[in-house]
Amino acid sequence: MPFDSLDDIRAFCRDLPQGDQRLADIAAERQANLTKPLGSLGRLEELAIWLARWQGRELPKLDGVTIAVFAGNHGVAARGVSAFPPAVTAQMVANFAAGGAAINQIARVAGAELRVVPIELDKPTGDFTEAPAMSTEEFLAAVEAGRQTVPDDCDLLAVGEMGIANTTTAAMLCAALLGGGAVRWAGRGTGVDDDGLARKRAAIDRALKFHHGILGDPLAVAAALGGRELAAIAGAVLAARQRRIPVLLDGFVATSAVLPLARLGTGALDHCRAGHASAEPGHCDLLRELGLRPLLDLEMRLGEASGAAVAILLMRAALACHNGMATFAEAGVSAAD
Amino acid sequence: MPFDSLDDIRAFCRDLPQGDQRLADIAAERQANLTKPLGSLGRLEELAIWLARWQGRELPKLDGVTIAVFAGNHGVAARGVSAFPPAVTAQMVANFAAGGAAINQIARVAGAELRVVPIELDKPTGDFTEAPAMSTEEFLAAVEAGRQTVPDDCDLLAVGEMGIANTTTAAMLCAALLGGGAVRWAGRGTGVDDDGLARKRAAIDRALKFHHGILGDPLAVAAALGGRELAAIAGAVLAARQRRIPVLLDGFVATSAVLPLARLGTGALDHCRAGHASAEPGHCDLLRELGLRPLLDLEMRLGEASGAAVAILLMRAALACHNGMATFAEAGVSAAD
Repeated sequence: MPFDSLDDIRAFCRDLPQGDQRLADIAAERQANLTKPLGSLGRLEELAIWLARWQGRELPKLDGVTIAVFAGNHGVAARGVSAFPPAVTAQMVANFAAGGAAINQIARVAGAELRVVPIELDKPTGDFTEAPAMSTEEFLAAVEAGRQTVPDDCDLLAVGEMGIANTTTAAMLCAALLGGGAVRWAGRGTGVDDDGLARKRAAIDRALKFHHGILGDPLAVAAALGGRELAAIAGAVLAARQRRIPVLLDGFVATSAVLPLARLGTGALDHCRAGHASAEPGHCDLLRELGLRPLLDLEMRLGEASGAAVAILLMRAALACHNGMATFAEAGVSAAD
Repeated sequence: MPFDSLDDIRAFCRDLPQGDQRLADIAAERQANLTKPLGSLGRLEELAIWLARWQGRELPKLDGVTIAVFAGNHGVAARGVSAFPPAVTAQMVANFAAGGAAINQIARVAGAELRVVPIELDKPTGDFTEAPAMSTEEFLAAVEAGRQTVPDDCDLLAVGEMGIANTTTAAMLCAALLGGGAVRWAGRGTGVDDDGLARKRAAIDRALKFHHGILGDPLAVAAALGGRELAAIAGAVLAARQRRIPVLLDGFVATSAVLPLARLGTGALDHCRAGHASAEPGHCDLLRELGLRPLLDLEMRLGEASGAAVAILLMRAALACHNGMATFAEAGVSAAD
């Protein structure tokens, strides 16, 4: 069911589908009987129980794993906020199609299907320092593009993005919804120099003033200060919640894309896990604000769902242990004293 | 070539085979040309370069990955230092053989061959609180068992262990070689209660006094205060160095097993990476002492090479990116300004 208005999204986030507590309890009981000291698989145990909760299965599966990478272009790129020219967004989409990017390689290792969805690359968002990035209609269209990307038979979804200048957009959303100004959220992204970082901060602080009247409305912020690929990520994460599909978030940009949802409903990200902590400094701060603990910390800062895709491997290890290990009784192993 | 004496090991550690700096440089150059911002794959880049250095290949491979799990029993178990009875060591070896343990599942996901090597389980080491754990001959025999476990055609080796009471042995080695007494190194292992922890500490502090005369000799410590499975790990890591095979270390016990080697030669662990940070508190302290940064931090504390085996998955992701990604020139992607 598509979201026809911002109010549709707001209503959904006030009355969210919940995971299956009974199946989570059964999975936790199973973990306690497997041939290992209680809790000794650490976060792998929690991940298996989380999969059981959202899939509604005592023995979860990861047969259909989808990585969705959304791409968009940003009006604010004209302000010189990135080390790369905007043409690179489309060039990298072509690289994804040709199989030459990092995410192609990691998706193959992770046994995941890669879906790359460019959204109106020839139509950058408005420059949010002096205009809305998107109209409500444009925002909803991007949300819908994200929603439609999630397959019906999906056991786990990983979301990420590509879009030159979009760490500026991510920092923009964080500054608008969490405060602290550009200095708190703007980092070097793909590797901008000192002058570029100063331009990035100036753009964000200017936009905070220009849009000061809407900062209390998370979805208005997502439209006026966001980006198409970020809106699509939000749409995909909403679609996953509709179908109780567990989600792995990638880095700073992907996480900032779902920040507005977290502001609309308590527990709106309960079906999400943070795949990794990005080296982009704002990400750890954002994760703390959202109460998300990253699974990996490999100093990655590439985007394109690469960190979330590596985390799929952890999910596979967690699942294999949960589903495949013998219990103490089955193996004839003595329990603890 | 076996080590016929402790002096053989000492001599080897004074004149260690080195990695291939030229191939590491070539691999680093390749990383700089792949379609991603420089350094944006973080530690995955460093891992690929490390593989290139030790395998001596611009494009490393991970066709043959071996996980070696050594098992041994410990005289000090009679002192009530573990939550589990000593019979569990053999029971878990049977569980490994039957495919029911965590490491069986993770090895399958990681595409690795699992070699389980029990070493004289019916002959526990001496209780080191009142006698040497092993004679020099027994120690060398266990080192040799480890050495022989490493296959000739091995692209990556992960090492781990099983042995009831062996976190006491690990803490013992750390206390003997790094100082700070039992209070610095003894943790709850598989989940010992307060009384058990007190017994564990008492055993270690008693042994420090009993063996005070040998504490300056790393290999004498490894024999008199170690364990057969720890000696085998040291032997496997030495064999890997002989053949320039990169190694992933598992948790506290596996890392403590190679601490004596680090004391014998500068850079003796350069061919090793720490697969993960164990939840056993002494492990992080030990990793800091050795200058090793763990790849994962999943609060695991199971042993049996489980953390190192999960880290194999990171190596596969790192390798896939290094070998499979397009360069900027190949993909027609514009470089940074």
